[in-house]
Amino acid sequence: MVKIAVDAMGGDFAPHAVVKGAELACREGLANVVLLGDENVIRPLIGNSEGIEIVHTPTYVEMDESPSTALRKKRESSMNKAFELLKEDKVQGVVTAGNSGAAMAFAIFTLGRFQSVDRPAIATLNPNVKGGISILLDAGGNVDCKPGHLAQFAVMGDVFARSVLGIEAPRVGILSNAAEETKGNELTREAHAIVKDLDLNYIGYVEGMDMYKGNTDVVVTDGFVGNVVLKVSEGVAEVLMTFFKDNIGKSLRRKVGYFFMKDVFKELRRRVDFSEYGGAPLLGVDGVCVICHGRSNEKAIKNAIGMAKSFVEKGLNDAIKEKMQSYQSLQRIKER
Amino acid sequence: MVKIAVDAMGGDFAPHAVVKGAELACREGLANVVLLGDENVIRPLIGNSEGIEIVHTPTYVEMDESPSTALRKKRESSMNKAFELLKEDKVQGVVTAGNSGAAMAFAIFTLGRFQSVDRPAIATLNPNVKGGISILLDAGGNVDCKPGHLAQFAVMGDVFARSVLGIEAPRVGILSNAAEETKGNELTREAHAIVKDLDLNYIGYVEGMDMYKGNTDVVVTDGFVGNVVLKVSEGVAEVLMTFFKDNIGKSLRRKVGYFFMKDVFKELRRRVDFSEYGGAPLLGVDGVCVICHGRSNEKAIKNAIGMAKSFVEKGLNDAIKEKMQSYQSLQRIKER
Repeated sequence: MVKIAVDAMGGDFAPHAVVKGAELACREGLANVVLLGDENVIRPLIGNSEGIEIVHTPTYVEMDESPSTALRKKRESSMNKAFELLKEDKVQGVVTAGNSGAAMAFAIFTLGRFQSVDRPAIATLNPNVKGGISILLDAGGNVDCKPGHLAQFAVMGDVFARSVLGIEAPRVGILSNAAEETKGNELTREAHAIVKDLDLNYIGYVEGMDMYKGNTDVVVTDGFVGNVVLKVSEGVAEVLMTFFKDNIGKSLRRKVGYFFMKDVFKELRRRVDFSEYGGAPLLGVDGVCVICHGRSNEKAIKNAIGMAKSFVEKGLNDAIKEKMQSYQSLQRIKER
Repeated sequence: MVKIAVDAMGGDFAPHAVVKGAELACREGLANVVLLGDENVIRPLIGNSEGIEIVHTPTYVEMDESPSTALRKKRESSMNKAFELLKEDKVQGVVTAGNSGAAMAFAIFTLGRFQSVDRPAIATLNPNVKGGISILLDAGGNVDCKPGHLAQFAVMGDVFARSVLGIEAPRVGILSNAAEETKGNELTREAHAIVKDLDLNYIGYVEGMDMYKGNTDVVVTDGFVGNVVLKVSEGVAEVLMTFFKDNIGKSLRRKVGYFFMKDVFKELRRRVDFSEYGGAPLLGVDGVCVICHGRSNEKAIKNAIGMAKSFVEKGLNDAIKEKMQSYQSLQRIKER
């Protein structure tokens, strides 16, 4: 059975939600789990310890700690020790809902990057109206990117969509302010010039809504814009739901209407609920790593463990490694 | 009465929607209007010509024409002739739903910029859940910006919020991927360093959802990110509405529910309907100019004319001119 290291101390609701999520994953037979953290705190939280090991770590990374400080002072943290287990082949993947900047820093430091990957990227899985998944990368790891970095994201996104989502010729687009080739900014225009010559099903510029409409499988952007887009999407959905909530209570008539329509709202909430998807894979590092939302509940943790397991079974990282090496042009890309 | 020049040939539904919108504005006593365009096409569309003049122009700017081509070849267009009327003081403002890049180019070319303004910006008015308006600039005019440009946007946004929205000490924020000062990218960090020293009610970094939640009055960003944010917001709202539409029809129970809740949906649609707000002011050029959404219907055009009129009456441009000149530090900003 696949074994996943889980940072029990990372996340707004850690360690409780993380431990419960790990327990759930074991009970459902998704994977065996190694929980890293303060043993005295974690052990009492576990109901059924089947499939769960604990590795005691003396410290952990704070949610608001700067990645560079963490990198200097928190080598013994639950987060980094999880990556060390992976490096030593004692587990096959890492899941953390902790400080995502620190997770990225430790992943790069401890696991290392693949050749031809300058910047590992966080990829998020976004449900679209066609019932499929579109992936967006980078979702926040690299706020300032060069065109060549975007090209590397495009290749890694393509491999992910093929090997994990099973899409034969994933449509890859660069996020822009408009679809026309003449639009975009300096960064997207230069990235476009590189990506269109790669061996990808590249469909040119896409807009944010193309992701939700299912018009593209892979959306490539820098981590600043990617993160802003995801947060705005969450925000708009939240504001609309609040609008309904505030207005439904205002009359009996509306309350009756809501009663009859409740299942539609429930289904919508399920669809936009990030915990259904677990977490975001960190692509380009030498090892499977899933970074979860800080607000992850136990369901999100469980699903992230399932996600990590499927990446292991589908050979995601070998596929990325192979593809990145096969691109002769990527050496050229690295210089741009 | 205030007189507004309206580009009758600009917009996806021009000239019909534009002419009807102008007629509506006149009938409601908002302003007198000069319609610019092909007289043979426009005149038959007008029902009641009270308050409406027509100025015949031989050509117009295509919606997908590049601004630089338009600038070279379309000086005699309905769009540029509208700006010329404003330059000659024959009208007090311009409204166009045409090619926004070209509108910006002609506005700068024909009207000129204020001193200390390197980059005029398109500002959009966004409804927030508190029932107020938050403005975002730049919404698409300037895809590649320097930190000093963002500082200029901050000052212009502040003046707009004061003089048009009547907010005493507008909260000004820079759009970022997170609220902490250590986040953001190179551009936002340098802009932050400039703006925090200006005489503004600067609240630091804000996120996209702060705009919709009413936590900030002015959101400053470059035109690429601003445009992406607005389009993603529109997209998410559209996708959610489509979700409801598709799912409500699936059972009688839900249809009954919808019947009772219909007014909530209607109110929501009204709130997110851009035509309620008219258009987006172009700030920093020497004359009142409102740029409308390409998809503007007659209501949007009417409201844009009302908007232009209110900018004239509230002395928006004099206020911007004065404020930009008063900032000694803006000369320094220009160099950054």
